Amino acid sequence: MEELREAVERANHETVERMMETRPVLVGVEEARNAISFLRKEFHLTHAGPPIEWERASGPLRGAIIGAALYEGWADSVEEAERLAERGEIVLAPNHHYSSVGPMAGVISPSMKVFVVRDGDFYSYTNLNEGLGRVLRYGAYSDDVLERLRFLNDVVGSSLATALEECVREKNGVDLRNLIAQAIQMGDECHNRNVAATSLFYREISPYIIRSCDRETAVRVLSFIDSNNHFFVNLAMAACKLMADRAHGVEYSTIVTAISRNGTEVGIRVGGLGAEWFTAEAPIPRGLYFPGFSESDANPDIGDSTITETAGIGSAAIAASPAIVRFVGGDVKTALEITRRMGQICHTRHRYFTIPYLDFEGTPTGIDIRKVLKLGLTPVADTGIAHRSAGVGQIGAGIVEIPAEPFKKALRRYAEVYGLR
Amino acid sequence: MEELREAVERANHETVERMMETRPVLVGVEEARNAISFLRKEFHLTHAGPPIEWERASGPLRGAIIGAALYEGWADSVEEAERLAERGEIVLAPNHHYSSVGPMAGVISPSMKVFVVRDGDFYSYTNLNEGLGRVLRYGAYSDDVLERLRFLNDVVGSSLATALEECVREKNGVDLRNLIAQAIQMGDECHNRNVAATSLFYREISPYIIRSCDRETAVRVLSFIDSNNHFFVNLAMAACKLMADRAHGVEYSTIVTAISRNGTEVGIRVGGLGAEWFTAEAPIPRGLYFPGFSESDANPDIGDSTITETAGIGSAAIAASPAIVRFVGGDVKTALEITRRMGQICHTRHRYFTIPYLDFEGTPTGIDIRKVLKLGLTPVADTGIAHRSAGVGQIGAGIVEIPAEPFKKALRRYAEVYGLR
Repeated sequence: MEELREAVERANHETVERMMETRPVLVGVEEARNAISFLRKEFHLTHAGPPIEWERASGPLRGAIIGAALYEGWADSVEEAERLAERGEIVLAPNHHYSSVGPMAGVISPSMKVFVVRDGDFYSYTNLNEGLGRVLRYGAYSDDVLERLRFLNDVVGSSLATALEECVREKNGVDLRNLIAQAIQMGDECHNRNVAATSLFYREISPYIIRSCDRETAVRVLSFIDSNNHFFVNLAMAACKLMADRAHGVEYSTIVTAISRNGTEVGIRVGGLGAEWFTAEAPIPRGLYFPGFSESDANPDIGDSTITETAGIGSAAIAASPAIVRFVGGDVKTALEITRRMGQICHTRHRYFTIPYLDFEGTPTGIDIRKVLKLGLTPVADTGIAHRSAGVGQIGAGIVEIPAEPFKKALRRYAEVYGLR
Repeated sequence: MEELREAVERANHETVERMMETRPVLVGVEEARNAISFLRKEFHLTHAGPPIEWERASGPLRGAIIGAALYEGWADSVEEAERLAERGEIVLAPNHHYSSVGPMAGVISPSMKVFVVRDGDFYSYTNLNEGLGRVLRYGAYSDDVLERLRFLNDVVGSSLATALEECVREKNGVDLRNLIAQAIQMGDECHNRNVAATSLFYREISPYIIRSCDRETAVRVLSFIDSNNHFFVNLAMAACKLMADRAHGVEYSTIVTAISRNGTEVGIRVGGLGAEWFTAEAPIPRGLYFPGFSESDANPDIGDSTITETAGIGSAAIAASPAIVRFVGGDVKTALEITRRMGQICHTRHRYFTIPYLDFEGTPTGIDIRKVLKLGLTPVADTGIAHRSAGVGQIGAGIVEIPAEPFKKALRRYAEVYGLR
């Protein structure tokens, strides 16, 4: 028993070391079909969260699937898109199974552009952030949504692709770990507040955009980034995905390497338990709603964005970001409490992500399922809230507690795998 | 007596209201000779702090005067520049007497470009920040310093001038109060930490730079701004100067409307006491020195930058900026103590500048000379440290306490003016 405990400690130590020492660098933009192997085929889509099929999919995920089918030209009408999905002609797989992540519905289709993030021979991918208002990731699919998606992929994505080629030639790309570390010093937690990270990214990419685009395109692309202080969140997620994937797969590890929600279920993965998802029904976030909406309109929790909490930012770093707690209905005390809570269930403090107001203490990193169950404290995340019906979009933002059930299931499986009683 | 106290309260209230409600907007870049009336004549220079002449000028101020004379072509050698200054052929006046401010030596000469900041019919001016390393404002005047000054004025200054013309046409310029308010939410105190403000300014100005410059110039100008996270400090100072000047001149006011140092003396002005400076010997800052330098190399405190503390940012906002306290040798506790100390001697809390970690409490604003003397607590500032010899440059950064003497002199004069015993 003592021996096992030591094996677990060693494994968890190696897990968080790998997580913190991964150095994700943004190196390019590609068409999804050339980056995400599952999307080589038409009528294939990836989505947020653990595996799910159309029948069980929630409104916003269905809306995003319909939008993607229309965007790809697989269907000419909403009804036709729905029929394709119902007949199983649209094939779904989780982003997480293909080194990728996406916020909210997280739907990625073959012709969409994705960011390519790299550390040595390891890669992660994410879609480009569409901006605020009515957007696909919140389940909206009206013509303006598709129009914006075309601009995002054809103009913004293509320009970023050329710009990043020169950026890589000149300085090997954009060091995302470094950028996130700086942003946390500037009040971001890089899940729901990304104004600093977006600003720093804007400064890094501007010269390359200017050099590789004609004047008006450069202005349009930079103004698009400037218009959306959440632009960076997808990059934060891809960086965290690479950190978590590199940390995954250490025998005996009890550290969580993925937390994700598909709008119906929330699932976690554990470092020492392979590819299996441990799931429960997705909860509804508590938070602030836009005028005219209430909790009764809210969809259950959705999105891959909780990969940030998995890797030591998001709610783990929220004590550095009181502004965002206010946005979701809390205050400075709430922010400190949330970071402390994450600290009680995490294996270590981050070596590179530090919180100025806690005397530059590292952010809680490496959620240990044993601590979660021993203390009865589950991770929390601050998140956006989508309307439960397809086609509407965001209606608020709030705080969500991940239920205990997935952690219990995981510990049960751990006992089986490692032969405990 | 009671009547007078009420008159003072009313006056101080009006003073801080004017200070907070001033809305400085960056509207252009001009040659100093067209903006600062004193500089219409050749051989005229403005400088930081209260009035001073060459004989009493400290090393860094002398160095900057020599550099400016070489830059303007008034002299061909250091010796010739010194002779001109000794003979009084170079005429000096404080920036503060001409609605302008400049960091450290603060020397502005007729052909230098200055930012133009405006609120209605009222204006303030400041020079462009040269960047780090060997620079004129720290008293350096070698060829590389002058070369950089030429690039700053001929390329950066001219490009910003054209860019701001379009920015003003499109959206009336850059709202500096708003930008400073955001930057304080992002860990700046806008005196010694300006990374957020510089980033936000970079985002605001980029499209106009791109539209008004050829591609390579746009990249050079933006890269110059990107290379210096202090670029914004001059704009913060000009914004505060306009706030302080608009607040100045209320009869009975005991609120400080200027704190400034010329490297020999520190001086203050008071709202109800007209143009008079109340001065004392400038102290030497306590702080951290660059390798190879110590306090014995340090020049007494110098620069107009304490206009930031005068208007409610800088050390008043330092609790929002623990990173900078660390840079000058303190910690989070120090930061909170400094902001609290400023709070004890200020009339109010700022309406627009708030500190996230103090539950978005406003920054202490409006230093009241009565409170300073009653509590025996003077304002402190975080500041750069210049070498005492001409031609060297920056050797560190630290915290400086403004001496009590100027406040005592001011109160004495107040008693005379307003007929107190």
